[in-house]
Amino acid sequence: MTIEPIAILHSPLEGKFGVPRQSGLAASLECEVELLPPYRREEALRGLEGFDYIWLIWEFSLNGKGEETDEKAGVQLTVRPPRLGGNTRVGVFASRSPFRPNRLGLSSVKIAGIDGARGVIRILGADLADGTPIYDIKPYVPYSDAHPDARGGFTDSAEWKSLKVEFAPGVAEAAGRLGIGALTEILSQDPRPQYQDDPTREYGLSYAGRNVHFKVAGDLLTVIAVD
Amino acid sequence: MTIEPIAILHSPLEGKFGVPRQSGLAASLECEVELLPPYRREEALRGLEGFDYIWLIWEFSLNGKGEETDEKAGVQLTVRPPRLGGNTRVGVFASRSPFRPNRLGLSSVKIAGIDGARGVIRILGADLADGTPIYDIKPYVPYSDAHPDARGGFTDSAEWKSLKVEFAPGVAEAAGRLGIGALTEILSQDPRPQYQDDPTREYGLSYAGRNVHFKVAGDLLTVIAVD
Repeated sequence: MTIEPIAILHSPLEGKFGVPRQSGLAASLECEVELLPPYRREEALRGLEGFDYIWLIWEFSLNGKGEETDEKAGVQLTVRPPRLGGNTRVGVFASRSPFRPNRLGLSSVKIAGIDGARGVIRILGADLADGTPIYDIKPYVPYSDAHPDARGGFTDSAEWKSLKVEFAPGVAEAAGRLGIGALTEILSQDPRPQYQDDPTREYGLSYAGRNVHFKVAGDLLTVIAVD
Repeated sequence: MTIEPIAILHSPLEGKFGVPRQSGLAASLECEVELLPPYRREEALRGLEGFDYIWLIWEFSLNGKGEETDEKAGVQLTVRPPRLGGNTRVGVFASRSPFRPNRLGLSSVKIAGIDGARGVIRILGADLADGTPIYDIKPYVPYSDAHPDARGGFTDSAEWKSLKVEFAPGVAEAAGRLGIGALTEILSQDPRPQYQDDPTREYGLSYAGRNVHFKVAGDLLTVIAVD
């Protein structure tokens, strides 16, 4: 089956570094879903204003072909979720890992606004990288989609460890209109690659055309500069 | 982007007629998701037993190319949801209509059991037809997927009109082990095509290898025979 993008995501987070690991984790992060021709028409979004959330079906376009391959089957059957520390294997269909057959991602995101004339939906809480191709947009229908009491397997017990975020003197002011709220949420999720724990190392995050420099010592992330 | 089925759905409902219009509407209807090679391996489902629900991403394979085409754009931009009586148009991205770009379906279904050795997940409440190709299975993660208080647009106010279902004398007994519960749920959703309202007309539903004959008068559906 061949599918074609119907929309593309625009995010202030440029590149893969810092993209939240699940939707809703950076609840203040605002992105835009832009319909592509021939769907970039007001009619295609008619009635969406009555919904609070949408589903996006998208492609994990920034990942490689898979973290590794199962030797016997020649395909990826298990993955090691970061949530479990990266050492425990679960089945690929028991995880939301990007390393999966067909590389399809699924996210519920909050509607912040709809600009029908431009064919744009402004959304909050996305876990998609800038430029991600989107293959479908569906309204979130609570009576069939919401199961708040459902058991969530390993995600129930293993919480994300979040960092405390502070800005070095003067840096928050320098960041200006960047939207410190969303930036703080993104940084608190600890964007560092797994297993890296070097308090002297400086990291850089591309956000809204600015470079955000930070270090991490223990559970404290300090933003050193924004330029 | 080319995607390939990783599983197939098996349902006691043969054909399209009677397939629920949304997941969860026939909560007792049990189906099987069968992994296809090379994914038909116990490892691919490891850890799924800790979850109550899964997402299925699938293809609306039984539908035609679309109900109609927008003249200006050459593509389908709006649809007429049955929930709104079939006369009101909403944007295709504000509906869960099967007549959509890329023909991708999305359903949350309840896990009834997992048979890892066979590569099978038994599920409840599916709105997929027998034989539907499935492109991804993901665990339902309540903290990112459940928004019970979200507004559901036109689905909030327009309830499905359901029918009262009764069995003619002796017929429920004849149905025997068919699973009257699921069958009643399916029939109560009114499987008739829209606009058909002929009390003399007899309909037939293929269910679990049997033929279920019924008529509808007003809000009452009567099962006449099961053979």
